Amino acid sequence: MDYRGRLQRLRQVLRQHRLDALLITHLPNLRYLCGFTGSAGALLVSDNAAVFVSDGRYKAQARAEVQSARVLISPKSPLVAAAEWLKAKRKKGRHSRPGKLGIEAEHLTVAGRRRIAEVLPSGVRLKAAPPLVEQARMAKDAEEIERIRAAVLLGARLFDRALQTIRPGVKEAEVAAEIEYAARRAGAEQMSFETIIAAGERSALPHGRASEAPIPAQGFVVCDFGVILAGYCSDMTRTLYVGRPTDEARNVYETVREAQQAAVSAVRPGVSVGEVDRAARKLLQKNKLGRYFTHSTGHGVGLEIHEIPRVAAGQTEILRPGMVITIEPGVYIPGKWGVRIEDMVVVTERGCEVLTPTGKELIAIA
Amino acid sequence: MDYRGRLQRLRQVLRQHRLDALLITHLPNLRYLCGFTGSAGALLVSDNAAVFVSDGRYKAQARAEVQSARVLISPKSPLVAAAEWLKAKRKKGRHSRPGKLGIEAEHLTVAGRRRIAEVLPSGVRLKAAPPLVEQARMAKDAEEIERIRAAVLLGARLFDRALQTIRPGVKEAEVAAEIEYAARRAGAEQMSFETIIAAGERSALPHGRASEAPIPAQGFVVCDFGVILAGYCSDMTRTLYVGRPTDEARNVYETVREAQQAAVSAVRPGVSVGEVDRAARKLLQKNKLGRYFTHSTGHGVGLEIHEIPRVAAGQTEILRPGMVITIEPGVYIPGKWGVRIEDMVVVTERGCEVLTPTGKELIAIA
Repeated sequence: MDYRGRLQRLRQVLRQHRLDALLITHLPNLRYLCGFTGSAGALLVSDNAAVFVSDGRYKAQARAEVQSARVLISPKSPLVAAAEWLKAKRKKGRHSRPGKLGIEAEHLTVAGRRRIAEVLPSGVRLKAAPPLVEQARMAKDAEEIERIRAAVLLGARLFDRALQTIRPGVKEAEVAAEIEYAARRAGAEQMSFETIIAAGERSALPHGRASEAPIPAQGFVVCDFGVILAGYCSDMTRTLYVGRPTDEARNVYETVREAQQAAVSAVRPGVSVGEVDRAARKLLQKNKLGRYFTHSTGHGVGLEIHEIPRVAAGQTEILRPGMVITIEPGVYIPGKWGVRIEDMVVVTERGCEVLTPTGKELIAIA
Repeated sequence: MDYRGRLQRLRQVLRQHRLDALLITHLPNLRYLCGFTGSAGALLVSDNAAVFVSDGRYKAQARAEVQSARVLISPKSPLVAAAEWLKAKRKKGRHSRPGKLGIEAEHLTVAGRRRIAEVLPSGVRLKAAPPLVEQARMAKDAEEIERIRAAVLLGARLFDRALQTIRPGVKEAEVAAEIEYAARRAGAEQMSFETIIAAGERSALPHGRASEAPIPAQGFVVCDFGVILAGYCSDMTRTLYVGRPTDEARNVYETVREAQQAAVSAVRPGVSVGEVDRAARKLLQKNKLGRYFTHSTGHGVGLEIHEIPRVAAGQTEILRPGMVITIEPGVYIPGKWGVRIEDMVVVTERGCEVLTPTGKELIAIA
C-alpha cells in the first residue's frame, strides 16, 4: 500500500486547513496511513515528521508493519506518549510560533482530549479537525479495490451455504452459524458485522440479527452478511422466499429489484449520492412502497463496514472514480414481511462496476 | 433485572457528585440501566426523571425493552434529541438554578460534546463525570451472576471442540472456526472477543489471534476464547501441548498453574486487586519467570469483556462480593513459547468461587 503517498497527500490537506499537525488514533485511519493492524496506537503527522507510538505489546508488530513513520514504543498510553513527544520536540525549539494540533473530533473522547491538553505546552492549541483521513479514504486506489473485490467474492460464495441451509424449522442462528463457519474455513479474518438472518415477520426488521426463531414454512428470508479479508470489508444482502411466493410477494420483490437496479444505474462520476438515493426512492414511491423504505440507500465500505459517503436523501457528496458504496434499498411492512437487495459497486471513469457477482432473481425454496 | 433499583442508586451517586443529571450513551451502560439492547440511544437521568431516546429503527424494540424510563423516539441523533428534551424542560421553568449535566468523559467524543453544548441553554454546564455507571456495574447482582455462569459454562464446553480439532498441520484459524461454529450452534449470541489460537512460537504472543499458520508437531497451543450469552461475556484460556512435553515445558506449565492458583487463593472481600496480581507475580518471580509475565493478572467481566477493575500491579480497588474477574497469569518467552491459564471467578462473602469448570492439568495431544 502507498502509505508514503497517503501521508504526503494528508500533509497538503493539513496545510489547506491551517493545521501544523494532526494526531490520529482511530484504528482504521492508522491502518490506512501507516499499515498498523494492532489495537492501540497513535500517529502524529506534521509537515516534517510522522511518528507512530504504540505500547510494549506491539513492539515487534509495529516495527514490522509501519514503514512510513518513525516508531516509538512507550509504556504510557499512545495518546499521552505522542503528546509528550510533541512537547519534547518543541522544547528543542524547532518550532517557535504557536502550533495548531488537529484532533479527530469524531473519535477522540472528552477524557482523551483532556489527557493530551494536560501534557501539551501552552503554545500548542488543540483544534477539532473534520474527518480528513476518512475523506481521503473515500476514493479507493487500485490495490484497495483488489482487496475489496477479493472480500466481496469470498462473501458471495457464502450465499450458497445459506441456500443449502435455509429450510422451514431451521433456526435463523443455525443459518448464521453455517455462513460464519464457511467464512472462517475460507480464510475470512472475521465477519464485518453481525450476520442478519431475518425470516417471516422478522424480515420486516431492517436490522434483524439472526435469532433463535425457526424459519416459518412460508415467507421471505433476508440474508445480510459480510466478511473482512486482508482488512477490507464486504457487505451483501439477498432475500429469498420459503414456500410458494404469492403474486403480492413476487410484485414486492420485483419492485425492490427494479429500485435497486435504478440506483445502480444512477451511479457514475459527477452524480451526487443524494441523486442515487432518489433513483431508488422514486421507483418505490411510484409503486406506492416509498413509505416502507425507511432507511438510506447505501454507504461507503472499505476498512470499515460503514464509511462516508452516506448514500441518503439530501446528501450532496459527489461520486468520484474509486469510491466503493453499497446499493441496498428495502421495503419493510411491519408485522408482515420485508425485502432488501444489496450489492457493492465501485465507481469507474464512466459509470460503475457491480462487484457482487450473485444473481438477483427471486429464489424460492420449496 | 432490577433497572429501577439501579437508577435509584445512580441518583444517590449523582447527588454525591453534585450533578443534577447524567447523560449516558455508552451502550453497555444503557443496557445496564434500562435494558436497551440496540445500537443507538441516550439516557438522561436526573433526580426526578429518566428519559430514554432512540431513533425510528428502534421504536418497537425500545418500547418493549425499556420499562424504567420514559421512551422518546426522535429522527435526530439520540444525543442531540436528549439535549433538546432537557432544554425544552428547562424552558418550562421547572428548574430555576443553573444545572450541572454530567457526561461520560471516557466515551463521549469531542464532536459529540460540542453538538450537545450547542443545543443546551446557557444555564446548563457540562461536567466530565467519572465512570459512575461502570463503578456501579463492578459488583454483579444475583441475576447477573446467573447469566455470567451460563455464559461461562457454554464457553467451557467449547474447549472440548478445541481438543478434538487441534492436531499438527491443522491451521489455527480452523480450530477457531470449529470453536465459533460450536458456540453459535449452542446458542451464543457472538464471541466476546477475537478467538486466540496461538501455536508453537506464536504462543509467545499474548494476543495471538488465530492465523493461517499450521499447528507445528511440537509445542504449546494457547486457546483463549469466550462467548456472549444473554448479553454477558465469558472468557477462558487453556494451554495444551502438542507432542511429548519436555521437562522444561512441564515445569513452565506447572509454575504458571501454581501462580494462577495462588492468585485465585488470594481473592476475597477486603483484598485489593493489586494484592491478587502480586500473588501470581511473586510465584513467577520466585521461579525466575517474573520478567516473562508481561501483562496484568486479570480484569473485570460482565456486559463487556474488559471492565474495571484492572487486576494489575499497584491497583488499589478493594474486592467486594459479586465482583467477577479473570485470573490469567502467563509466561511468554519470545521466539520460543508461551503459557497462559485463565479462569473467571466471582467474589463471595468469604472468598471466591471459580466459575470456569475446566481442569487445569497439562493436556498433551500426541
